[in-house]
This record gives sequence, C-alpha cells and structure tokens, in this order.
Amino acid sequence: MSKLLIVGTVAFDAIETPFGKTEKILGGAGTYIGLSASKFGVKSGIISIVGGDFPQLYLDMLEKNYIDTSGIVIKKEGKTFFWSGKYHNDLNIRDTLTTELNVLADFNPVIPESFIDSEFLMLGNLHPTVQMSVIKQMPNRPKLVVLDTMNFWMDNTLNELFEVIKKVDVITINDDEARQLSGEYSLVKAAQKIHSMGPKYVVIKKGEHGALLFNNGNVFFAPALPLEEVFDPTGAGDTFAGGFIGYLTKTEDLSFNNMKNAIIYGSNLASFCVEKFGTEKMESLSQIEIKNRLSQFKELTQFDIALE
Amino acid sequence: MSKLLIVGTVAFDAIETPFGKTEKILGGAGTYIGLSASKFGVKSGIISIVGGDFPQLYLDMLEKNYIDTSGIVIKKEGKTFFWSGKYHNDLNIRDTLTTELNVLADFNPVIPESFIDSEFLMLGNLHPTVQMSVIKQMPNRPKLVVLDTMNFWMDNTLNELFEVIKKVDVITINDDEARQLSGEYSLVKAAQKIHSMGPKYVVIKKGEHGALLFNNGNVFFAPALPLEEVFDPTGAGDTFAGGFIGYLTKTEDLSFNNMKNAIIYGSNLASFCVEKFGTEKMESLSQIEIKNRLSQFKELTQFDIALE
Repeated sequence: MSKLLIVGTVAFDAIETPFGKTEKILGGAGTYIGLSASKFGVKSGIISIVGGDFPQLYLDMLEKNYIDTSGIVIKKEGKTFFWSGKYHNDLNIRDTLTTELNVLADFNPVIPESFIDSEFLMLGNLHPTVQMSVIKQMPNRPKLVVLDTMNFWMDNTLNELFEVIKKVDVITINDDEARQLSGEYSLVKAAQKIHSMGPKYVVIKKGEHGALLFNNGNVFFAPALPLEEVFDPTGAGDTFAGGFIGYLTKTEDLSFNNMKNAIIYGSNLASFCVEKFGTEKMESLSQIEIKNRLSQFKELTQFDIALE
Repeated sequence: MSKLLIVGTVAFDAIETPFGKTEKILGGAGTYIGLSASKFGVKSGIISIVGGDFPQLYLDMLEKNYIDTSGIVIKKEGKTFFWSGKYHNDLNIRDTLTTELNVLADFNPVIPESFIDSEFLMLGNLHPTVQMSVIKQMPNRPKLVVLDTMNFWMDNTLNELFEVIKKVDVITINDDEARQLSGEYSLVKAAQKIHSMGPKYVVIKKGEHGALLFNNGNVFFAPALPLEEVFDPTGAGDTFAGGFIGYLTKTEDLSFNNMKNAIIYGSNLASFCVEKFGTEKMESLSQIEIKNRLSQFKELTQFDIALE
C-alpha cells in the first residue's frame, strides 16, 4: 500500500461563527488533512511543529486514527501556532482576529526516515520555502504531489511560490486566489494559465458553491452538499484536500476519471467537517456516514438523459 | 402535444458589459423564455404588450421560431418597455441605468382563445397582479404553472406576490431572493419555507454557480457550464426557465427525475444565452450544439463510484 506524507500546521484555533464560539481548540491544515485522509485507511504521517503547550491527548487522538505523528516536533520552550477568526453570516467571509506564528516562525521540516519514500505528498498551506524543503528531501519524486496554498503567499512570497508550483502535479486554491495567481477573471482561463505554470491538475475550490477540477481541456465539477446548517467552515478546504489525496493514495489510480471520484470524496468529507466546530465531526465520523452521504451526492448530481 | 403559454415582457434592452456595449436591442423575459422553449419544438404563445416603435421584424423572428405572437398587443401610440444596465467584472453584479415602463404600465393581459386551454403556463417576471390575472383567465388549471419573480416585487407588492405563490407548482428565484422571501440564510431552510407557501418545487438560481431544485426533501443540483467568456448574462435566468418548462412541455412527464433533466436543459440553454449579446446566440442556436453541450454537462457532472 502507498504511503501519504502530509506537511501542514498542527495548531490551536479559536473560532466565532453566527452559531457560537469556541475556546482554543485543535486546528491546523495538517490536522484536518490527516483526519480526512485517515478515512481511507491509508498509512499517513504528518510533518509539523508544536509547542510545549500542545496537549499529548491531541497527538494520541491522531495516532488512534492511524496517523503517524513521529514527524511532529515538540519544541518544549515554544508555544503552538494560534489562529483566531470570526465568520460572518456569509460564511465565505471571515475576519482574522489573531495570528501568532510562535514555533512555526522557525519551522524546519524533517521527513522521518519511514516516510522518505512516500508515494503521495500533500503540501498543506505553509510558507513555500518550507514546502520546497520537503520536496527536496525526497530522494525519489512521489507519484503525486498536491499543493495547497493561499493569497497570503501570493502577496508576500510569490517567487518562492512559483518555484513550488512548477514542481507539483495538482494545485488546490480558491476562486479568488486562482484569479489573483493568473490575472484572469474567467476560471476556465485562470486554470489554463495555471496549467502553464506547471500543475497538470488545477482544483478551484468555491466553498459552498463546490469545486472544479481542470486537466488540460477536461473539466469536472463537484458540488458542495446543500446543508441546513453550516456551523463552522474552518478546515473545510483542508478536509477537502485530505479526502482528495487520501482517496488517490488508497486507489493508486491517477486517471482523470478517478480524480473525479477523488474530488467527490473531498467534497463529501468537507460536508461533514462544517457540521460541527473544529475537528469534532471528523474525529467521530464513521464509514457508514460517508457511504450514505455518497448516495446523497449521487442523487444530487446524477441524471439520465439519453443522448440519441 | 401540450401547449405552452408564456406571459412576460417583450422589450428593448441596452446593455454594457466589460466586453462591450449595445444600442437598443431586442430583450424581455417573454422573448428569452419563448426562444429557449422553442428549441423543444413545442407549440408556444407569448402574451405581452409592445409600443408602436417595436419593429415588425422582431415579431417575424419569433413567429419564424414557431412562437405564436397573436397575444402580443401592439399599442401604436405607446412606446415599448425599455431597460438599460451595466454589468461589472463580476457579472453577478449589475447597475440598472434606465427603466422606462412605457406601455407596460397599463398592461392588461388577455389570453388568445387558441391558448386558453394550455397545459403548461410560464409566468415570467412581471407585476404579480398581471400574473394572477392570467391564472384566473384559464378555465382549467394547467398541469404545471411555473412562476419567475424577483426582489422588486418582494419589496413592493409582497401580499399580491404571496397570492400568486400560493397558486403555482414551481417557483424560480435567485439565492438572495430565496433568502429575502423566506428570511432564512441556509438555502435548504429557505426552500423548506417556500414549499410551505405553496410551490411543490423550488428552483434556486445561483448564476455562474448553477441551480438547485428542491422538492420536499429531494434536492438536485445543475451546475452552470464553466465558460471561457461570459459576454452578457442578460436573459440567462429567463432562458433557464424557458428551457426548463419547454422540456417539460415536450416530455409531459412531471416526475422528479424528469424535472432533473429539465433543469439540466435549462442550464444548457442558459450557457449559450450568455455567449453573445442579447438574443443573438439563442436565435441561431442549433440542435446539434445543444446535444453536444449536453455531452459536456454529462462529462462535467457524472462520476462512477461503486456503492458496495
């Protein structure tokens, strides 16, 4: 079975939404990606860094979900990365209230020996030089490298980001970021330009409006499941990415048709993530729930018009 | 074969988008609905009113598309309804520059004898009392009544609108309007509330983000086709509605599965409407183009994950 290496933050979040408010809880891109990918029973490991204030029980929870945490450095004298934010009624809009980098400021990722030969690599949203360092440590290029990034790195470290983009197979970004990166308003044209920067596959995330997968002329769309209530969108994009790469790691099939399935699974898992605050729903999520929701996705999207 | 009766504006538009600008051209909800429904070869008629300034060649064009225009009153001493607007880069946002009601101000619709027994009725976006008058003129209730409306009527004639909503089978509105009408932010909850006002089917249009069809617990999603360029979104919603009811009129099958097909056809036709200014693309659109685009919709949405 293939192995999945994930680099991403493991962190504290404090979240306010129209539905409520949390204290400091477990968060971080690496956490959400790992939990989501774990639903496919793949062997995965996270590289990250936390401070001495990070509870052992969070690490235990990840291990219980078969996520290798030996690549998570605990810097005892430091504090864990902390983000807090407040979402508006339109949950696509949020204000960042606090960003404390803490130990993340001098994160120097080191891949554990047991994951150096991973066939699948997920570069979670982080400084591009950290992402590049992970790519360079791998003696053999993985079968698939997926990059997630955001506008912050486009604003501040664009050249370093371009170097990473050149080296990946798949990039996942949201619609505004695709427009910023490409300078094109049309998402079809944006995807074409981003293809020319390197990635064969461009995934454009549109939050509650679903996600598009582009691959040189082919395009596939996965809707988001219409939900009665979205409690907390934090981690939804990472959960989507984790579902995408988790499914591909399990199936080891990189055809466009299988990529379609992978983004449906990404959307499926993201639809659970937002139902409760933080990681709560992802920690308790069962296989039967995922399967039932897959039926809902089929009903939501499948139609039967004969093409005579 | 069933007959389709359409009530809606036949009008002049002047449009400015980031891609260009038009003089006064043919527009109006009735026009777009009629042209779209005409692609299914159904017998349809429009009820509307125009002024003495309305070119006969526009009426000829509609007749050439097998749309009965005997219900379009020509008020020689009056001027045709005129709307002009300017779209932003985000084509979901537009400013209305001019609205001249003209002859529409005292439009008193009269159904031609040959359409009084229509099995399908499309109430295009108009004053609710005009819509109600058409409903009341029909001695036998049609098999299906579809209502399109907008926020203007919710702001100004809500009680009259509620009376119309009670009497229809399907309502089509956009996402913001669904929220306004229901007082619910979640579209799932909004649809539930709107069901309770009367319509068994609620279609929520999200522009470039597709459309949702709700029917008491069932939900289906039709994406918009991702396009390289959207030249002019004017009439897209009406074209969508015309495709929806045109397909249902042709197939005479009101099952939920067939409604799914109907909104896919609505989205299919709307994707053509926006490719050129005004009605230009809809006038020239061929059956082979529609069929090819249906294949694109299948590729865009259909996936094949086994549910063991």
